[in-house]
Amino acid sequence: MRVVVTGGGGFIGQKLTRALLARPEISRLVLFDTAFPPQLPQDARLEVVRGDIADSATVARVVTPDTASLFHLAAVVSGAAEADFDLGYRVNLDGMRLVLENLRRCARPARVVYTSSVAAFGGDLPPVLDDSTIANPQTSYGAQKVIGEYLLADYTRKGFMDGRSLRLPTIIVRPGKPNAAASSFASAIVREPLNGVEYDCPVGPETAVWLLSPRRVVEALLHAHDTPAEAWGVNRVLNLPGITATVAEIVAALGRVAGPKAASRVRYAPDARIQAIVRTWPARFRTPRALAMGFRADPDVETVIRDYIADEGITPA
Amino acid sequence: MRVVVTGGGGFIGQKLTRALLARPEISRLVLFDTAFPPQLPQDARLEVVRGDIADSATVARVVTPDTASLFHLAAVVSGAAEADFDLGYRVNLDGMRLVLENLRRCARPARVVYTSSVAAFGGDLPPVLDDSTIANPQTSYGAQKVIGEYLLADYTRKGFMDGRSLRLPTIIVRPGKPNAAASSFASAIVREPLNGVEYDCPVGPETAVWLLSPRRVVEALLHAHDTPAEAWGVNRVLNLPGITATVAEIVAALGRVAGPKAASRVRYAPDARIQAIVRTWPARFRTPRALAMGFRADPDVETVIRDYIADEGITPA
Repeated sequence: MRVVVTGGGGFIGQKLTRALLARPEISRLVLFDTAFPPQLPQDARLEVVRGDIADSATVARVVTPDTASLFHLAAVVSGAAEADFDLGYRVNLDGMRLVLENLRRCARPARVVYTSSVAAFGGDLPPVLDDSTIANPQTSYGAQKVIGEYLLADYTRKGFMDGRSLRLPTIIVRPGKPNAAASSFASAIVREPLNGVEYDCPVGPETAVWLLSPRRVVEALLHAHDTPAEAWGVNRVLNLPGITATVAEIVAALGRVAGPKAASRVRYAPDARIQAIVRTWPARFRTPRALAMGFRADPDVETVIRDYIADEGITPA
Repeated sequence: MRVVVTGGGGFIGQKLTRALLARPEISRLVLFDTAFPPQLPQDARLEVVRGDIADSATVARVVTPDTASLFHLAAVVSGAAEADFDLGYRVNLDGMRLVLENLRRCARPARVVYTSSVAAFGGDLPPVLDDSTIANPQTSYGAQKVIGEYLLADYTRKGFMDGRSLRLPTIIVRPGKPNAAASSFASAIVREPLNGVEYDCPVGPETAVWLLSPRRVVEALLHAHDTPAEAWGVNRVLNLPGITATVAEIVAALGRVAGPKAASRVRYAPDARIQAIVRTWPARFRTPRALAMGFRADPDVETVIRDYIADEGITPA
């Protein structure tokens, strides 16, 4: 079977790639992105395409009619989509429509897993959100993600494909450098101190985050793919489970895992622009539907940090 | 002030036009549509543009930077959008984006009133819907309308315009002929018998409809336009008030207004395609937010029928 991962060069895309390559039924795995890390897995089944998801000829080359499954992870992240309105719509909406239009031509309806986000939620919210909370995004990224959910649901309803949208919590801990995502701080408060680097956190210690680890999100992507269509029915959008932790709690967990010196490397330097975006994101959820469908959260923040150290081969500074 | 009505040649567009022409502050009223009725109001302020809403040059000519207000009524209706997937997305999504992109260039943010629909709702629904019910459309028309709501909300949040989306109930009684809307029956069961014509209703007598009259919908469009931005806040989508009536109740009201002979002209000839669409539309709502904002429903179905007879100058057959 031929499988495509858009955003396959990214952090989650790369972890998903390694998980997919463990599946012998996959004969071809196509990664599509604007950029790739220098070290890619050595596997003859892997095909790498670099290009623009808003370019129709490129997308037609990637999303061919023999595609059996597609993971649509490619996106302009929240901070960047807020800073550049046109770029966000071009990639997150127009790019997604190109992917869907090409999937329509598949010989057999492809299975599609799409990463949406808790950025779908905003405005006047209850203290704890649940599966009945209306999406009312207060960022362009969130609006684009929700629009993508409705597109995928409609293409699915018409029988053109078999789509599943997952609203991802904030994923921590991301390796590498801080990026343009407004949620970048949530990983940086763990990663930078472990690297021996001081970090100026742009939001206050009381800021609560709804979070999930890379291990659990890859597990969720595969589980969303593998569950039968009947498990989704007429509702193709799912809030993933997660855990709620404040910045202070994450820093405290870091201290327990890596010592008080590591924890002391987080300082606070509030950034109004980042705070304004993050403030619109909810941090407390009940996710009974996802739990009933077999999706699961991490047990606690310490486990998330220990898994990061193990998976990335970190030697805590 | 310059005001634009897309879909200005349509049934509601024409009634809205007459109401807008009564406002002396409007110096220019531009009607945009693919077709217009032969008789248009005689008013020097009126400008009529016939064209394709998915053509960027045409839309740029209609939605000029001096536009103060725009009513976005143009749409491919439900039955047609379901029958022609590409046409629906081309007009209802691409056309709307062109309108919004041109509004972005306005010297001052324009006030925008957009007609969405109860077709936003579907899937697993509670017996009575309310302002907290999630939109889960089960038609492409509904999906396109919801996507339009999210687009307008995001363009509004960015300060490009000041948008308000109204989810319209089924509007009865429409004059003219049955059209491609799946809801066409709801007007035809009143209009055709009043014209002395027998009508084969494609849905059963027990079918319940959430309805509003043309008088009330024009009133709602103007009220939505005139209310201050503060009344909407971060939630730019509103379920309009309406009344619930079954086909049998509407036919009975027709009998009370126009006599049993008129009522006897409705026969039942179920059409599986129409029933499949209409079945996904909810018929019972609570609309506390709209009522608190000053929107109102018709008092009863008999009044709706009597208003139709008066407004259209009908002599019941």
